[in-house]
Amino acid sequence: MPLLVMKFGGTSVATLDRIRRAAKRVGREVANGYDVIVIVSAMAGKTNELVGWVEETSPLFDAREYDAVVSSGENVTAGLMALTLQEMDVPARSWQGWQVPLKTTSAHASARIEEIPTDNLNAKFAEGMKVAVVAGFQGISPEGRITTLGRGGSDTTAVAFAAAFGAERCDIYTDVDGVYTTDPRITSKARKLDKIAFEEMLELASLGAKVLQTRSVELAMRYRVPLRVVSSFEEYDPNAGTIVCDEEEIMESNVVSGVAHSRDEAKVTLLSVADRPGVAAAIFGALSEAGVNVDMIIQNISEEGRTDMTFSCPTNQVARADRCVQEAREKKLINFHGLEVDSDVCKVSVVGIGMRSHTGVAAQMFEALSAEGINIKVITTSEIKISVLIDRKYLELAVQALHDAFGLEKSG
Amino acid sequence: MPLLVMKFGGTSVATLDRIRRAAKRVGREVANGYDVIVIVSAMAGKTNELVGWVEETSPLFDAREYDAVVSSGENVTAGLMALTLQEMDVPARSWQGWQVPLKTTSAHASARIEEIPTDNLNAKFAEGMKVAVVAGFQGISPEGRITTLGRGGSDTTAVAFAAAFGAERCDIYTDVDGVYTTDPRITSKARKLDKIAFEEMLELASLGAKVLQTRSVELAMRYRVPLRVVSSFEEYDPNAGTIVCDEEEIMESNVVSGVAHSRDEAKVTLLSVADRPGVAAAIFGALSEAGVNVDMIIQNISEEGRTDMTFSCPTNQVARADRCVQEAREKKLINFHGLEVDSDVCKVSVVGIGMRSHTGVAAQMFEALSAEGINIKVITTSEIKISVLIDRKYLELAVQALHDAFGLEKSG
Repeated sequence: MPLLVMKFGGTSVATLDRIRRAAKRVGREVANGYDVIVIVSAMAGKTNELVGWVEETSPLFDAREYDAVVSSGENVTAGLMALTLQEMDVPARSWQGWQVPLKTTSAHASARIEEIPTDNLNAKFAEGMKVAVVAGFQGISPEGRITTLGRGGSDTTAVAFAAAFGAERCDIYTDVDGVYTTDPRITSKARKLDKIAFEEMLELASLGAKVLQTRSVELAMRYRVPLRVVSSFEEYDPNAGTIVCDEEEIMESNVVSGVAHSRDEAKVTLLSVADRPGVAAAIFGALSEAGVNVDMIIQNISEEGRTDMTFSCPTNQVARADRCVQEAREKKLINFHGLEVDSDVCKVSVVGIGMRSHTGVAAQMFEALSAEGINIKVITTSEIKISVLIDRKYLELAVQALHDAFGLEKSG
Repeated sequence: MPLLVMKFGGTSVATLDRIRRAAKRVGREVANGYDVIVIVSAMAGKTNELVGWVEETSPLFDAREYDAVVSSGENVTAGLMALTLQEMDVPARSWQGWQVPLKTTSAHASARIEEIPTDNLNAKFAEGMKVAVVAGFQGISPEGRITTLGRGGSDTTAVAFAAAFGAERCDIYTDVDGVYTTDPRITSKARKLDKIAFEEMLELASLGAKVLQTRSVELAMRYRVPLRVVSSFEEYDPNAGTIVCDEEEIMESNVVSGVAHSRDEAKVTLLSVADRPGVAAAIFGALSEAGVNVDMIIQNISEEGRTDMTFSCPTNQVARADRCVQEAREKKLINFHGLEVDSDVCKVSVVGIGMRSHTGVAAQMFEALSAEGINIKVITTSEIKISVLIDRKYLELAVQALHDAFGLEKSG
């Protein structure tokens, strides 16, 4: 029997009505001939409530108890979803993480999945169960304690189940109807993509397109599990949403697939850093230990043994970064003449696997920005992405200009 | 190390503040030299919310899914209680039913405890853990699914743990400060009892003194676990509350320990029933199948092969009882000439193990009622209890008169 994994996020199961609506989608796939593993999140708001209680009780909480508490939200949804399916005469039962068992590491609150034995669920499928409803986001440690996978862990749970059970596809039901060429709030020309490659999705996800958790996309790419991002709130349509898949399965595509943005960036430059081996390691090692999420790093050529070192980080981490490099200077770990901070920048990126075989994308991007009089402050590139830092006030203008320049309103 | 079991009901853990207050009590017993097993209920209102969701989702719900859903409330409290204790530097951890494991039958939603292996918890106590916080009301079936013990199951969980671990005592923390000679809302002369025998508590509990669940008292009696009922909301006092214990441990006591009442009773009489062998079985078998909770049963002597058969049941079950006996008559299972219903009665009882060795209690009771002009409609007696049905309007008067007549405001 072909098998599907269907994952419903918190807003898709926020009320009993929405659970019923989600269950209808599941019922339809069962009618289509699938066995289904449903992964559910907690009802919207529940996990935040539980986390709040834990933090109020114990600011430096024992992560094992945190996991025992916050995992309960998913258990409630799993049972209610199984009951709803039973009411629709679909043979279903719920499974908590430890019942599967979904085996994880002992890294409480951010555990990694180690193994998902398939025998328990498969035995029930063989007995006629059509739907296994599994509480997402949770597992069991080697010590027999409940673990959670960290925020967004239900997406990862879904992909891991799809990989373990050889599912035909993993459908991620959420509150958006797919992946767009860019943020539709910025330009109405934004177009929903029918397909996008794993690599592109990874770049878009880490750039702030909060549709899928990065880890779940990595996992899907490694195990070649096709993902479908689809809205819970639209009428059923088997072709709805966006398929995230291997690039070989995407026949034709634009050179550029999407324009991503990240609003709250800051640019920090250490002026006149002594340019000797190990200096970059010293700076970024210290920043990493201080918990600063460094994104772009740019080092220009040096003159007379000194260079300028620039990096970007979220605006609200600038103070921390400042303190960190000043302390490193006092400890004589690094040496620089001055610090320049620009907190009013944003990042805009174009992403596309087509770039690998097409030249001139960067030039086209810079021209489009230049035509709008937008000054580029920093540039970085990867194989399938070009990112620039620009003044924050130009964010919308830049996204619109690039979306037009690469013709993204038309499908490839 | 001596061991205590402490159970906190829903109102005692209703908020983070109350959990903190409860944890302080636990901390004090640890300071007194005890290892402690804490049994917690769900935060007040949580179980009702979960039950509401299940019933709305599926009126004839699968009890296995019901259990998976409603058990989650206790898991939350257990984790929060463990965190609170850790904040107070008391080594503690939480245990869910399946982790202990508390093994039960497969009778979902009303499972019975089969076994509580002590090795897992004892291994942790040996490692230095001082408090095991256990989610009450839940266990695991032989099939590995979550079970619940039914309403009030946390009391039963507490007593079962006390029995399994040979606890010195089982303290039931609740929102009343003990067991009273009668309902303090009816007479201000009601006096808190320092001690009461298991048998008396059973009669009082089943008569509507809703302090302890009947099953938990039965279990405590069987395993001779001393219970202490004590308020969470009063200042700490090692002698507070009421001890429920073996009658041998109660040195002196009044002949009568308490006056109980049950307000909403109805008296139903089948007139002129053919008096032949098997007729009582036919009537009460049918009533039982129909779900009527028959309490008192009275059959008078028969005349000319016919007799009157009277029973009492809750007022809101009269219609069901009526329908049931009429149907049984139509099917010719029983035969009677008429049905008399009196829905305006209540039950008043005096309870005391002293009755066993004292005669004249019944006479004294009837005299006291007679002196107030209260007519007795039905009488039943057991070894340690005398119950009467009287007109409902006399309930308060009767309770006050009996409380005075047996001198209950003074300790024995």
